[in-house]
Amino acid sequence: MSNCSGESNMSDVLKLAQKFNCFYLSGFRTSECKPFIVQGFQVGLIRPDVIKQLLSFPEVFHFNQDCVELNPAFRDYDTRSVKVDEVLKELKTKNVFMTLKGWRDECYEVKTQFDTPSLLKMDRSATCLFGIRNYGVTINGFVRHPEQGQCLWFQKRSASKQTWPGKWDSMVSGGLSVGHGIFETVYKEAMEEASVPDNLLKNLKSAGCVSFYFESERGLFPNTEFVFDLELPIDFIPVCSDAEVECFEILPITECLRKILSQDYKTTNAPVVLDFLVRHGVVTPENEPDYIKIIELLHVPLQTIYWHRNKIKENGFGANEIQGSQ
Amino acid sequence: MSNCSGESNMSDVLKLAQKFNCFYLSGFRTSECKPFIVQGFQVGLIRPDVIKQLLSFPEVFHFNQDCVELNPAFRDYDTRSVKVDEVLKELKTKNVFMTLKGWRDECYEVKTQFDTPSLLKMDRSATCLFGIRNYGVTINGFVRHPEQGQCLWFQKRSASKQTWPGKWDSMVSGGLSVGHGIFETVYKEAMEEASVPDNLLKNLKSAGCVSFYFESERGLFPNTEFVFDLELPIDFIPVCSDAEVECFEILPITECLRKILSQDYKTTNAPVVLDFLVRHGVVTPENEPDYIKIIELLHVPLQTIYWHRNKIKENGFGANEIQGSQ
Repeated sequence: MSNCSGESNMSDVLKLAQKFNCFYLSGFRTSECKPFIVQGFQVGLIRPDVIKQLLSFPEVFHFNQDCVELNPAFRDYDTRSVKVDEVLKELKTKNVFMTLKGWRDECYEVKTQFDTPSLLKMDRSATCLFGIRNYGVTINGFVRHPEQGQCLWFQKRSASKQTWPGKWDSMVSGGLSVGHGIFETVYKEAMEEASVPDNLLKNLKSAGCVSFYFESERGLFPNTEFVFDLELPIDFIPVCSDAEVECFEILPITECLRKILSQDYKTTNAPVVLDFLVRHGVVTPENEPDYIKIIELLHVPLQTIYWHRNKIKENGFGANEIQGSQ
Repeated sequence: MSNCSGESNMSDVLKLAQKFNCFYLSGFRTSECKPFIVQGFQVGLIRPDVIKQLLSFPEVFHFNQDCVELNPAFRDYDTRSVKVDEVLKELKTKNVFMTLKGWRDECYEVKTQFDTPSLLKMDRSATCLFGIRNYGVTINGFVRHPEQGQCLWFQKRSASKQTWPGKWDSMVSGGLSVGHGIFETVYKEAMEEASVPDNLLKNLKSAGCVSFYFESERGLFPNTEFVFDLELPIDFIPVCSDAEVECFEILPITECLRKILSQDYKTTNAPVVLDFLVRHGVVTPENEPDYIKIIELLHVPLQTIYWHRNKIKENGFGANEIQGSQ
């Protein structure tokens, strides 16, 4: 079938939406990656280069043609977490995966769905090796300026950061690590990254979430970000209380699209800003020909994307036929 | 595989999101419906009861095991539109489909994608027989009340309306019919349905879109609504300038969730209000356990849902593997 979607004429914004969904739109098609199964449930996907290394640990990972399974003899959360951690630390020593050089000593939970109990925890530098779904929070810090109109704050990440050093990012963001809830994390990060005082944080408004599936040389990133809008007074200046941030900048929202399209913007933060620009009437169906496709690509079905594969194997259904069913 | 998604404990809001996506989550799984092909492109899906009637028109529709195809000898927009219209008028006379009793004399465009040229036009009462994607506009008319906080206007549809008579609905909404653009339609409907004057319409803000796939006894409804927020002064009272509306009502946004969950609310408008409640911080990850799943169900991938099926046939891919690719 010839291309009927006008691909060659696609907008820069659609290209960006395809870039932060590069795995969803290409790698996910192939059967190169194998489902990662824990206690009978798919929780991730593993690339061939990672499988090759895991083959050295047959007492921890079991392999067959269809999937990689964590040894089902590990019956509880603590055992599973310890056994996987031992493998990861050995791989870190062997120096085979660049992502493990950024070992965090901070874990993410590994779950079937966001609201189901965790099956194990894993250092956050390692989750991309297994395609584990990550969850984070982001604050769009904005100002209503009397002359410049609505303006949005950005931070430049420190050059010493393990991931995306020196790239532009949202004013505040952070991953949901073990033991920390959504609102707890967003308050903590607002304080640490931008020194937002409590009296301003009371204006924080939950505004949705974005879901996308990115891939880089480091690994696979199925990511859902909980999005918050925070209106700030025009005289507030964010200040970082640790060494994570190089500087902050504020831009009129009409200039933000250009900002996130630039090469020095963190690709995996662009969806949050794009969603902000859609919700606040900057990107509209009048000025963006690929408006609907872009909004669909801000919300790809990550909560059901793995579950399907389990069902396919069991029932022989095509995945499109149970898309989104739960 | 046992259920790991906590289905029995799902929230009322998730149940609602599944209700307005009933076809996406169930009918779409089965192969009962056949793709509807025009000029080599899938533009819809046809249920078996509809196929049975179309079999009487072999000069207009061609049938094979995989699909129903509009006679490819009809080479242009006008010919295709006229030939299909003749069939539909005969079916209307035969009285076999309830939806055709509500013949509108107003057409929708039939397209492969929202931004591709139209292949034919079809009376809007008939598009659900072919699973043609529908596009509409909706205005969330809201007020910031000094005591009651943010409040949202609703309209009660007239008891004489052909679809969803007597049900509650958004303040203003309308379908994108042939010859009318998005902004043109939203201004026209704001005037006709609620008598919003021009000086208030200047506050209209584009705020995204929602996409869902509903089915009723009338047919299939893959629907994308362009969403607009309109802040109104507290003394503005909407007035309908035709007989389409029974009355209007304003509610604090904290009461709107109860409103759209009730049986007398138009199911296919609920996604727009739910999206409003998510964007405005009423439905949050703190008070809604199925938050992510619900937001994913407000944005199902309608722009790529039909294109996949074409590719499946050609390439033998599983649909999950090309999900969202364009």
